[in-house]
Amino acid sequence: MALDRLKSVAQHVTGTGPPPHPFDPLSNAEIDAAVQILGKEHGQLHYNAVTLREPAKTEMLKWLADSVNIPRPSRVADIVAIAPGGKVYDGLVDLKNGKVIKWDVLEGVQPLITMEDLQTVEHVMRKDPKVIEQCVISGIPAEDMHKVYCDPWTIGYDHRFGNSVRLQQALMYYRPHMDDSQYSFPLDFCPIFDADKAEIIHIDIPDIRRPVNQAKPNNYHVASIENEGGYRTDIKPINITQPEGVSFKVEGRVIDWQNWKVHVGFNYKEGIVLNNITYNDKGTVRPIFYRLSLVEMVVPYGNPEHPHQRKHAFDLGEYGGGYMTNSLSLGCDCKGAIHYMDAAFVNRAGESTTIKNAVCIHEEDAGILFKHTDFRDESCLVTRGRKLIISHIFTAANYEYCVYWIFHQDGTVQLEIKLTGILNTYAMLPGEDTKGWGTEVYPGVNAHNHQHLFCLRIDPNIDGSNNTVFQVDASQGAGEVGSKENPYGNAFFAKRTKYNTVSEAISDYDGVTSRTWDMCNENKINPYSHKPSSYKLVSREVPRLLPKEGSLVWKRAGFARHAVHVTPYDDEQLYPAGRHVPQTSGEPSKGIPEWIANGDAPIDNRDIVLWHTFGITHFPAPEDFPIMPAEPMTLLLRPRNFFTKNPALDVPPSYCSTPSQIASKSKVTDAADKMSKLVVTGGGAECCQK
Amino acid sequence: MALDRLKSVAQHVTGTGPPPHPFDPLSNAEIDAAVQILGKEHGQLHYNAVTLREPAKTEMLKWLADSVNIPRPSRVADIVAIAPGGKVYDGLVDLKNGKVIKWDVLEGVQPLITMEDLQTVEHVMRKDPKVIEQCVISGIPAEDMHKVYCDPWTIGYDHRFGNSVRLQQALMYYRPHMDDSQYSFPLDFCPIFDADKAEIIHIDIPDIRRPVNQAKPNNYHVASIENEGGYRTDIKPINITQPEGVSFKVEGRVIDWQNWKVHVGFNYKEGIVLNNITYNDKGTVRPIFYRLSLVEMVVPYGNPEHPHQRKHAFDLGEYGGGYMTNSLSLGCDCKGAIHYMDAAFVNRAGESTTIKNAVCIHEEDAGILFKHTDFRDESCLVTRGRKLIISHIFTAANYEYCVYWIFHQDGTVQLEIKLTGILNTYAMLPGEDTKGWGTEVYPGVNAHNHQHLFCLRIDPNIDGSNNTVFQVDASQGAGEVGSKENPYGNAFFAKRTKYNTVSEAISDYDGVTSRTWDMCNENKINPYSHKPSSYKLVSREVPRLLPKEGSLVWKRAGFARHAVHVTPYDDEQLYPAGRHVPQTSGEPSKGIPEWIANGDAPIDNRDIVLWHTFGITHFPAPEDFPIMPAEPMTLLLRPRNFFTKNPALDVPPSYCSTPSQIASKSKVTDAADKMSKLVVTGGGAECCQK
Repeated sequence: MALDRLKSVAQHVTGTGPPPHPFDPLSNAEIDAAVQILGKEHGQLHYNAVTLREPAKTEMLKWLADSVNIPRPSRVADIVAIAPGGKVYDGLVDLKNGKVIKWDVLEGVQPLITMEDLQTVEHVMRKDPKVIEQCVISGIPAEDMHKVYCDPWTIGYDHRFGNSVRLQQALMYYRPHMDDSQYSFPLDFCPIFDADKAEIIHIDIPDIRRPVNQAKPNNYHVASIENEGGYRTDIKPINITQPEGVSFKVEGRVIDWQNWKVHVGFNYKEGIVLNNITYNDKGTVRPIFYRLSLVEMVVPYGNPEHPHQRKHAFDLGEYGGGYMTNSLSLGCDCKGAIHYMDAAFVNRAGESTTIKNAVCIHEEDAGILFKHTDFRDESCLVTRGRKLIISHIFTAANYEYCVYWIFHQDGTVQLEIKLTGILNTYAMLPGEDTKGWGTEVYPGVNAHNHQHLFCLRIDPNIDGSNNTVFQVDASQGAGEVGSKENPYGNAFFAKRTKYNTVSEAISDYDGVTSRTWDMCNENKINPYSHKPSSYKLVSREVPRLLPKEGSLVWKRAGFARHAVHVTPYDDEQLYPAGRHVPQTSGEPSKGIPEWIANGDAPIDNRDIVLWHTFGITHFPAPEDFPIMPAEPMTLLLRPRNFFTKNPALDVPPSYCSTPSQIASKSKVTDAADKMSKLVVTGGGAECCQK
Repeated sequence: MALDRLKSVAQHVTGTGPPPHPFDPLSNAEIDAAVQILGKEHGQLHYNAVTLREPAKTEMLKWLADSVNIPRPSRVADIVAIAPGGKVYDGLVDLKNGKVIKWDVLEGVQPLITMEDLQTVEHVMRKDPKVIEQCVISGIPAEDMHKVYCDPWTIGYDHRFGNSVRLQQALMYYRPHMDDSQYSFPLDFCPIFDADKAEIIHIDIPDIRRPVNQAKPNNYHVASIENEGGYRTDIKPINITQPEGVSFKVEGRVIDWQNWKVHVGFNYKEGIVLNNITYNDKGTVRPIFYRLSLVEMVVPYGNPEHPHQRKHAFDLGEYGGGYMTNSLSLGCDCKGAIHYMDAAFVNRAGESTTIKNAVCIHEEDAGILFKHTDFRDESCLVTRGRKLIISHIFTAANYEYCVYWIFHQDGTVQLEIKLTGILNTYAMLPGEDTKGWGTEVYPGVNAHNHQHLFCLRIDPNIDGSNNTVFQVDASQGAGEVGSKENPYGNAFFAKRTKYNTVSEAISDYDGVTSRTWDMCNENKINPYSHKPSSYKLVSREVPRLLPKEGSLVWKRAGFARHAVHVTPYDDEQLYPAGRHVPQTSGEPSKGIPEWIANGDAPIDNRDIVLWHTFGITHFPAPEDFPIMPAEPMTLLLRPRNFFTKNPALDVPPSYCSTPSQIASKSKVTDAADKMSKLVVTGGGAECCQK
């Protein structure tokens, strides 16, 4: 590490330079400093993670309330490292004082698998004689081992091996040519890799053997499409430009846009972390969320045959949504005027690394924000909306997850996730029965049923920390048709159920009542509606966890058993399947099941966290192959009784006429976008004209 | 009617000019001709509707299959008219032969309320002495009757008045100034208007009186916003341009875009009607839907007190989504390159009228269509998508419905609806208890709970007319954890239930199983998956009808009792609450309840129609007032086992590199959008730079 970098860290810490925001991820210099400080005491280590230890919330809230007089929370590095021999350590390094303040050895725990860990397996596997033997049995000559690939996954949990040894399972594939998509050529056996020994220690071989697929390659790269008739040529460009720049301001990592302010953090596990989300309500800065992020996900596969039960990746906890994040590209991943943020990580050797353009921040037109026409005189107002999108994309072996945090002018926060990439596939024999556990998406290719279940951690701060959650169910009024209280039978209302305790809050989605959940501040009553200030969670893609109670997935992914859990706030409770997820047995279950053990713990009118599991169940079809069109899913956090009126009324309209203007034929407001054109049609050639 | 217009109709009919497509709405000339033909036989009438009688499906399918040799289906006008005295007639006029081919008088039936019908009420109401008396009681001086307004609604059904007299109920409002939003000043009484007599025949007066609101106006027009601090000034323009024109071709009303072809019809009731939707699958034109449209909706309100039970508008069947459609404006309602279509209607006097720019057709960038990165070498493909949007917006008194039919390159058809406009409101006293039936959204303003339930009519044509519907439920596999068939408890599958009969198909949404519905052609099996070619209905906003069984709404809106009904195809079955909806009693229920009376009727492997009810339940909040930020809802029709692979693989990528290109450092495909820019930040002023 260069001396001047250390100096710059020292400057940050001592205050002679512009200090980082306490929520800022560790910089490269801070990562390097943390490693140097730790290295002095504990020698050479394999680094798994060096990331920001976020400040304690009580301390941070004080500083946010008065950053002039309250001391700035100090910078602490949270470190996970593996010592030679395989011992795993959790450590904390105080960067200001240059001290290791925690250094705990962990037993029976495996930290997540890094990209470097993943990269190793393929090289080892290709040289392993037993793997080569299996490839030959599958129909691949031994001299073609360079055409054999694997997607290494954590082993999940396999009772035969436990969790004292760091393991990966190698999902095997073949590529006739190095540019061919391997997912059309899955192999039927599964080597187990020992990360400490760097060797294959076992191979799971099915009873029924399925030789390598003889179908022709099924590709999506340019040469393959050109060979199959070429690209369509009838898509005309759509240009999106912002000649006057963007409508947001960036100060460090704080984005200021349309009354919203949000700090954009990023870490190796969750990817984007949004902190201290506030809304400037006519001069009053009102807190809404202290922290929002995706904290975990699990992807259980539904084929009951061994060893497919091991396929239930926790893509965040076992691999890291930050570590797997893509370096984004201008004009590819997003269009318009783009602000990128880089991400700093540590590598195995302890050096800081950078993923350029890890986070994309940009605006998009959002269509009609509101409109009304008076049918009497056609006086009309139409206002177009804008949205701010903070996004990253991560690649989990075969799959891609595109995560979009969207801020709207009406006070809504939307989370949209697009699933794309490639199906995980397994070999099948010609004519083999999939038994309903998968779909033959291409000859010889079985794509198994699976779920993508995400866990959204919402740390609400609705007009302050003391919040309460209500379940809201659209319900029929009491009384049958003809009764005094409901003579016409049309009565219905929003049935509100207050969650007083942790047990009461364990809840599922109810499609019959279009169930939503309100996060309220009962101390802040809306002056018009006399209802508490709140944000409503509106989420409709909420499948239940399909693996059964008592199953391995059910035990390991305790968070996914229900759509909503609410817990009292605790600085230590971030990851709902546990801090170190690989090779957890689920006995006992880590994370949320531990935190809700005291079911009587009160959760009303205090600092709480709402954990929401949502997602989709995916039954593959040939349309999803060889690369999957993006499948979107979305949820909303909507202000209800938070504002006294539509907060976007002061967004300038495109057009506004009033009855008096219509009657007197006087000038109306016309600010319609002048770049829009009429299409002129004729003779098959369409062009545009004003 | 001018002679040359009649000539042009004659030319169309006799084939000397370019004939209209059989699905084309009647032109102005055709409407005028129909009226002239009918007038000759039946004299002066009040016209309610003159619209296309769509060709019989069997005839039309033959013509679509061979439009060269099969005779073109003739043009027939479907006419609803009211004779002096109030008699209602349904008629058909053959435009080719100039003959009235049907003229039926109807008993106990009221056709929908036109905009002209609506406009009359306010003028009559203002002069009515009893209404003036009630206004005075409400605190409005008699000389201020020009400040009193009403939104006339059909009466729905009121047993006191039955359906032999044509009635409207006048929801009353006051405007302190003509530009003030009346919805902040609802009045508490409700006059009943007799359309035949053009007079007020009754006033419903509540037991508890609520004088006119004394709160200050709550407006959204330009002057009001400027008085309250003005507009925000920090939104920079986003320009969307298509310098080379659009990617679609227009031939008459057939749109040809990205392998899709669709005929865009329009009528007074449904608004947009999409016919003969096909996809060119590598040279084979495959039919998907014969007809898609919104055919009905009902908006029940949840306040049980008289006379609010009458508030349950059927906005399509009682007013017409076409009649209420907005004339759209370039750069306001949509941005980019826009193709508009006009709509031709008849007025009460029998003259043809035109709504300019009733339908908007344009493209939008659709973000990432698919992406995958190989974690080994970062070889990557990223392809951006495009969508085609066919939209219209209609104003139903206070509310606005924005209807977007969206075609995607991956074969998906999406229906998105945005709800905006203004809440229906009722008067309340200071401190009055809403009893949970509504929300005080502004002092003295009670916005009642309500539902918006839409009925989507899907006439599937999946690789031909013989289709079958399956219910699909994500289900756990048999066997408990540890059993032989499900040792790890992770088994799950798509449980498919075939609907053999009309009764079996009566079904609700099930959130627990993430229920979807497949429309299949069991005669066309996907060569890879061995499953039938199908389109899947994916719809998650599916509240149940909250008015109880046996209630007035339940009786009148039979279609809304369940999320899905399937019926054998019948040319006469278009409108699921009946052809003439106002003042139906629901005894017996019209439409779907009649059509499913024979529950044993087979619906497998034949020409069928799927009716889908979806929507939202709206519990108002102050954020929705005085004008509501658009609330979106969406559903998808997705190809499953229809294609043999992702049909959008030939969409040119923004970027593509392969492992061999990465390894050899050779040229990759880089077609990233060159208009996108980096944001340069600093000093609070953000601009853009390449």
